[in-house]
Amino acid sequence: MNKRYLFTITYDGGGYCGWQVQKNAVSVQETVQNALGRIFGIRPDVTGCSRTDAGVHADMFCFHCDLAWPGQPEALRKALDANLPFDIAVKDAVEVPENFHARYSAKAKCYRYVIDNGKYRDPFRLKHAWYQPASLNEEAMRYASEMICGRHDFSAFCSSGSSVVDKVRTVHSLSLTRNGNIIEMFVEADGFLYNMVRIIAGTLVMVGKEQLTQENILYAFECGDRGLLGPTAPAYALFLNKVIY
Amino acid sequence: MNKRYLFTITYDGGGYCGWQVQKNAVSVQETVQNALGRIFGIRPDVTGCSRTDAGVHADMFCFHCDLAWPGQPEALRKALDANLPFDIAVKDAVEVPENFHARYSAKAKCYRYVIDNGKYRDPFRLKHAWYQPASLNEEAMRYASEMICGRHDFSAFCSSGSSVVDKVRTVHSLSLTRNGNIIEMFVEADGFLYNMVRIIAGTLVMVGKEQLTQENILYAFECGDRGLLGPTAPAYALFLNKVIY
Repeated sequence: MNKRYLFTITYDGGGYCGWQVQKNAVSVQETVQNALGRIFGIRPDVTGCSRTDAGVHADMFCFHCDLAWPGQPEALRKALDANLPFDIAVKDAVEVPENFHARYSAKAKCYRYVIDNGKYRDPFRLKHAWYQPASLNEEAMRYASEMICGRHDFSAFCSSGSSVVDKVRTVHSLSLTRNGNIIEMFVEADGFLYNMVRIIAGTLVMVGKEQLTQENILYAFECGDRGLLGPTAPAYALFLNKVIY
Repeated sequence: MNKRYLFTITYDGGGYCGWQVQKNAVSVQETVQNALGRIFGIRPDVTGCSRTDAGVHADMFCFHCDLAWPGQPEALRKALDANLPFDIAVKDAVEVPENFHARYSAKAKCYRYVIDNGKYRDPFRLKHAWYQPASLNEEAMRYASEMICGRHDFSAFCSSGSSVVDKVRTVHSLSLTRNGNIIEMFVEADGFLYNMVRIIAGTLVMVGKEQLTQENILYAFECGDRGLLGPTAPAYALFLNKVIY
């Protein structure tokens, strides 16, 4: 009899077109389904906690799947881990109630965006941090972060091409921490619009360079105009950091 | 008129045959000399603080070079940084007295060795940590570390093929720190024999797995027999961490 399992994985998204299955490109979802197919003989469907864009990484990503596994969940974790390429690792597998849903049961998600702000570019972060050598006004960035926190219509923070109608989201927290040359932005919300985190990162960097002000952000919230904010920061410095159930 | 400059670089050694110029392989030294050649029109010789093996990385590596540079050292740092591939970055350039020598003026060096001890393999450390999932007796590893500290004949910790005669070295400190699944070993000494850090790492992991004891290490020190110790741990998890002048 099938039971529902929740898997937690971590992956380097550099080699993938994102989570979601796509034609003509390798996705994390397809890679996971193929690995489960090798273990179970038939290829099951798996349901992820979110879509992630091409190139985006995950410190933690969750998906559920209904499987007839006779053993302990830890043995299932090991079996899946052993059948995946090295850029995807399985951190955890647990049995969950059959009405648990990796996406709809999630209360919030947290993303991490990494900025390399050194006077030289860190050779060990080439593929995992956005290099921004300019001096940044971090106090202004923190003020702007506080403005972005809370419940707002985030239309201005959404790339075109999204079919979502309701663009009201609640950002629970948005913090910046510096460790040497590295600035990490953590943003937790009940949901995210298309490219929302990358637009927040691009906007905060523009604020840090004093090319955008708090007034610009206020006005962008009012107008809902994407063009008033900073660029969409690159995907390779973005990590899904946590899924909160 | 030439002045002597000391450069501090950091590099990902994954694409190089080590520091030292070699035939038929790309070295960090050659790459740096070519970059200086593009700036100065002639290719100067540079003298490094040590040889590092193929694949070994550097958080900090120093070399000196005599150059006729009319500007500030910071402008020289920037010029060299801009002429290097992204896997080598220039952290610093300073003018030093003409009798300063990157290798002979060094009082000590510190290496860092990274072990991934998680139950799953960290996808973001594939090329920069040695994956050792076995449970490790860290207390035994710390005791063994204390035994390795101090002034000894390190013949047993030297790979064959070394032409060095005097194998007495002083290890000033050897520490292990754990952060989540990652164990970092830091070892500082007045000098290192061929593969010495990698043999220490391989030996401490064997001690952690309880396949070698403190008695084995004592006996290896007495006999000077390389065969009595652990394997030479892989190069890709080793970083030259600090050069102390």
